[in-house]
Amino acid sequence: MSDNKTHADWRDKLHEIIYEADTPAGKLFDVVLLIAILASIILVMLESIKSFDDKYHTFLNISEWIITILFSIEYIARIITVKKPFKYIFSFYGIIDLLSTIPKYISLFLAGTHALVALRALRLLRVFRILKLARYLGASNQLASAIKASRAKIAVFLFAVLIASVIFGTIMYLVEGEEHGFTNIPKSVYWCIVTLTTVGFGDIAPETPLGQFIATIIMILGYGIIAVPTGIVSAEYTKAGGDDKKKTSNTDSEQLKNIQLNTQCCVNCLTETHHDNAEFCFKCGCKLHHD
Amino acid sequence: MSDNKTHADWRDKLHEIIYEADTPAGKLFDVVLLIAILASIILVMLESIKSFDDKYHTFLNISEWIITILFSIEYIARIITVKKPFKYIFSFYGIIDLLSTIPKYISLFLAGTHALVALRALRLLRVFRILKLARYLGASNQLASAIKASRAKIAVFLFAVLIASVIFGTIMYLVEGEEHGFTNIPKSVYWCIVTLTTVGFGDIAPETPLGQFIATIIMILGYGIIAVPTGIVSAEYTKAGGDDKKKTSNTDSEQLKNIQLNTQCCVNCLTETHHDNAEFCFKCGCKLHHD
Amino acid sequence: MSDNKTHADWRDKLHEIIYEADTPAGKLFDVVLLIAILASIILVMLESIKSFDDKYHTFLNISEWIITILFSIEYIARIITVKKPFKYIFSFYGIIDLLSTIPKYISLFLAGTHALVALRALRLLRVFRILKLARYLGASNQLASAIKASRAKIAVFLFAVLIASVIFGTIMYLVEGEEHGFTNIPKSVYWCIVTLTTVGFGDIAPETPLGQFIATIIMILGYGIIAVPTGIVSAEYTKAGGDDKKKTSNTDSEQLKNIQLNTQCCVNCLTETHHDNAEFCFKCGCKLHHD
Amino acid sequence: MSDNKTHADWRDKLHEIIYEADTPAGKLFDVVLLIAILASIILVMLESIKSFDDKYHTFLNISEWIITILFSIEYIARIITVKKPFKYIFSFYGIIDLLSTIPKYISLFLAGTHALVALRALRLLRVFRILKLARYLGASNQLASAIKASRAKIAVFLFAVLIASVIFGTIMYLVEGEEHGFTNIPKSVYWCIVTLTTVGFGDIAPETPLGQFIATIIMILGYGIIAVPTGIVSAEYTKAGGDDKKKTSNTDSEQLKNIQLNTQCCVNCLTETHHDNAEFCFKCGCKLHHD
Repeated sequence: MSDNKTHADWRDKLHEIIYEADTPAGKLFDVVLLIAILASIILVMLESIKSFDDKYHTFLNISEWIITILFSIEYIARIITVKKPFKYIFSFYGIIDLLSTIPKYISLFLAGTHALVALRALRLLRVFRILKLARYLGASNQLASAIKASRAKIAVFLFAVLIASVIFGTIMYLVEGEEHGFTNIPKSVYWCIVTLTTVGFGDIAPETPLGQFIATIIMILGYGIIAVPTGIVSAEYTKAGGDDKKKTSNTDSEQLKNIQLNTQCCVNCLTETHHDNAEFCFKCGCKLHHD
Repeated sequence: MSDNKTHADWRDKLHEIIYEADTPAGKLFDVVLLIAILASIILVMLESIKSFDDKYHTFLNISEWIITILFSIEYIARIITVKKPFKYIFSFYGIIDLLSTIPKYISLFLAGTHALVALRALRLLRVFRILKLARYLGASNQLASAIKASRAKIAVFLFAVLIASVIFGTIMYLVEGEEHGFTNIPKSVYWCIVTLTTVGFGDIAPETPLGQFIATIIMILGYGIIAVPTGIVSAEYTKAGGDDKKKTSNTDSEQLKNIQLNTQCCVNCLTETHHDNAEFCFKCGCKLHHD
Repeated sequence: MSDNKTHADWRDKLHEIIYEADTPAGKLFDVVLLIAILASIILVMLESIKSFDDKYHTFLNISEWIITILFSIEYIARIITVKKPFKYIFSFYGIIDLLSTIPKYISLFLAGTHALVALRALRLLRVFRILKLARYLGASNQLASAIKASRAKIAVFLFAVLIASVIFGTIMYLVEGEEHGFTNIPKSVYWCIVTLTTVGFGDIAPETPLGQFIATIIMILGYGIIAVPTGIVSAEYTKAGGDDKKKTSNTDSEQLKNIQLNTQCCVNCLTETHHDNAEFCFKCGCKLHHD
Repeated sequence: MSDNKTHADWRDKLHEIIYEADTPAGKLFDVVLLIAILASIILVMLESIKSFDDKYHTFLNISEWIITILFSIEYIARIITVKKPFKYIFSFYGIIDLLSTIPKYISLFLAGTHALVALRALRLLRVFRILKLARYLGASNQLASAIKASRAKIAVFLFAVLIASVIFGTIMYLVEGEEHGFTNIPKSVYWCIVTLTTVGFGDIAPETPLGQFIATIIMILGYGIIAVPTGIVSAEYTKAGGDDKKKTSNTDSEQLKNIQLNTQCCVNCLTETHHDNAEFCFKCGCKLHHD
């Protein structure tokens, strides 16, 4: 505990604001960050529209610099408020934060790299973090656990889809040939996935009767096997709901779920999803800071 | 109760006819309204077909005026039979009724606004109200409650789809570039949603091998994640059915459902879905009128 | 019973062969009929391929006449073996049998009506009747009952889809206009259904940014609401399975299902799905004939 | 048992390595085989890309010969380590192994048959065998049993889809005719399946109002009936999960599943999925070899 006490107070405060969402200041920070991210995405989008960029180039450029500098400040603040900065820097979000901030600086020195500013769109992933709000917490946790439980089955399924695509793609390449757009096997496999997933762009389409017959089989196969992942997730989900009910048969399960987890984030190891009444991080034992 | 007695008798009668569907007159009114709405939609459709409009312009115009005047009368009748007219005027259906009636009058003074007559299609939404018939009442209530229960989860899901679209759309813009139709990021994102939802228009299609590879990932992702909302609704629906069964284990649950709700509509606050044996509105306490 | 006795024996025999599938002769008749139907479909298909028809016109024509005469004999046999011939003639299958046999005769007198021979494809519907075989009987009954139970809900759902299509179609007509392929409202509605059902032909595609934005909403809507019918059928199906299990908890439910129904068909009123140990038709009380 | 003892020891060893995955050597063999198969697929793909083949033809050719020889050795080894070689040779995987090895040899004598090398893609099916790893075993078994249980229902469903396609395809041929791309009935049926499965290439699209109206019905039908197989698999899957739970209510069902089956393969009849503690093959009674 003495280890925690020596940690500067303003750093703790800043940590709570930046990493957590339980205090009013923390919530405000998250909302501002959310708006900044959305604004930066819209800027990148507008800039990519040539007619718009020609008109408002200066405005867009200045706005981008403001956003870039704000993100840079946030990046530095995140580093200095964590005890083990490298843990953050090399974490998933740390790398995304860097990748979405640095291209603008690079574009000063290297011409032609400006398009990379679009990498900023990756920042949208942080939205998942920001949405650690009470209401959606339970919903997304349930979703995540249903997907997690059916992970192995979905992997087997996707594997089967890929293998079917390669085999059918190769057959279509042999049947249709280059003259009908199936110029090589990878392209045939691409077409096969387009068909199997029922997307059907139509940029390539079979023209020989045999090719159309095989396409028919692929389509019906694709139409039928969509039932498999749906069935899996659905069953897993029903089961998860059932298990939940059994475990919490004596208490209000909904309320329980909301109590269980909060948005606190350990100052030492950045672990999240602590229990609401937790005093210490369950990963590193470091004390958690309440208001 | 004295408050209700003072309300003119013919108004009460009219209210019952217009807003409810329990009396023969009320049912007849609903059927006539349904036919009028469908007729008005068909008129708008026929008018938009140029070759048809050229031939029968006068007939279409007169028919439209008849429908418009009928709808105007209905609008006024709805206002005068409700105790708090503004409650209706600013309600969802009140605004739609106005929006679908007024363009025809405006087109008299302002040329070029005629196309807005098509807004009348919004009136179709009223069909949901008219279908307050015994049989579909239970079905649509069950549907609505299943969707309501899975609202938060579907919001999380749609959010994830949108974020994935923005990120993949940006990547595709960087990979494919303007020469292959991905002229700007919003268009790339549009293409990405077209692909992720397995619609696949084919107006834009990736042409570089890397672009096709990423498209493959997007398609399989889209094909896989369709399982998520399906699983949610399915589980929620099964659960809802299960809960229903438990609650009504001693009685015939089907019969119960049909008894529970009728099409009465409070004269004061327009609240609906009253119990069949209800004497007073459960929202404002105002007396309900039976035949 | 005397009423049944007077019925000629050879007619009873023929009735059993044609309408039922419990005797070896009945099964053979069904298999031959199935093959004849498939052959007639293949003939019609081959005839529609011009290059093939040019080569083998005489062969195709003779084969068609053979099939047509066989079907005519079957049609007459069906009429004379039933006690109330008009019941068969005006039944669903009676009309289809006539429609699929008569165009060939008409084409003798009226030129240009030959294409109507393709109506013979409707005969495929009879396959559902022929497949009254033990194995698929249970499966299709379960399917049918699941669909039947969710009929009202699916109607509500389809209704919602249609209304959404009309409203969005009208909006797209206003937004995109004639110059981008949305030439009139019915075509816009057609495009909207193409998009909402995630088919996405791409023969018409939005080109204005606003149109593409609305298209995005339609697609995500379509992608999301597919979950609704799936959830309904899935839940209904699970429930049906559960109910079955409860009712037959003491006996082997699979075996029970196979016992319950056979392919007997009443000689008087053509009612089907009689219990295996039934002696009399449950509809008209007429005696059933066992071997 | 004496029958088994006389079997050469090195053969038993080799059998264990090639056919099973319980020993380190067996696992290594499977991993090497997996890599070899993937490498051979990638080689075939690269060779089909003309620009790539022109540059690296010699390298690709030599690599293919190496892979072909390796597969030939494996094929021979598989034959000599099994007691009844013809059982393997005429088994599903035996034929695939031959088909994927022999085209390269044939291409030496017969020019133009080189494209058949692509048949090697069929080898990917063996991946399903190799993935007999603990983790995915349970998942794929559960998947397979869910699909197996709903086999009859899915057959009925696919049958209905096919019949609907033929009937609607014929109608569309009559309605749209040759001038709009519906040149013959098979092509119309192909288009109908493309539409019903919501793939929607758009290479053919209805152009007459009536054709578009029928297309609308087909699309909504296709959109609606996708719910059927999903519901079936989902319900079957939920039921399978429920049955499992009941049977293993006292023990950890997950652990049980992993114990039940291993990757041993009978030396005599190639039967698989033996229980972990099995001493003899449950099919032919031949002794199983543990380390």
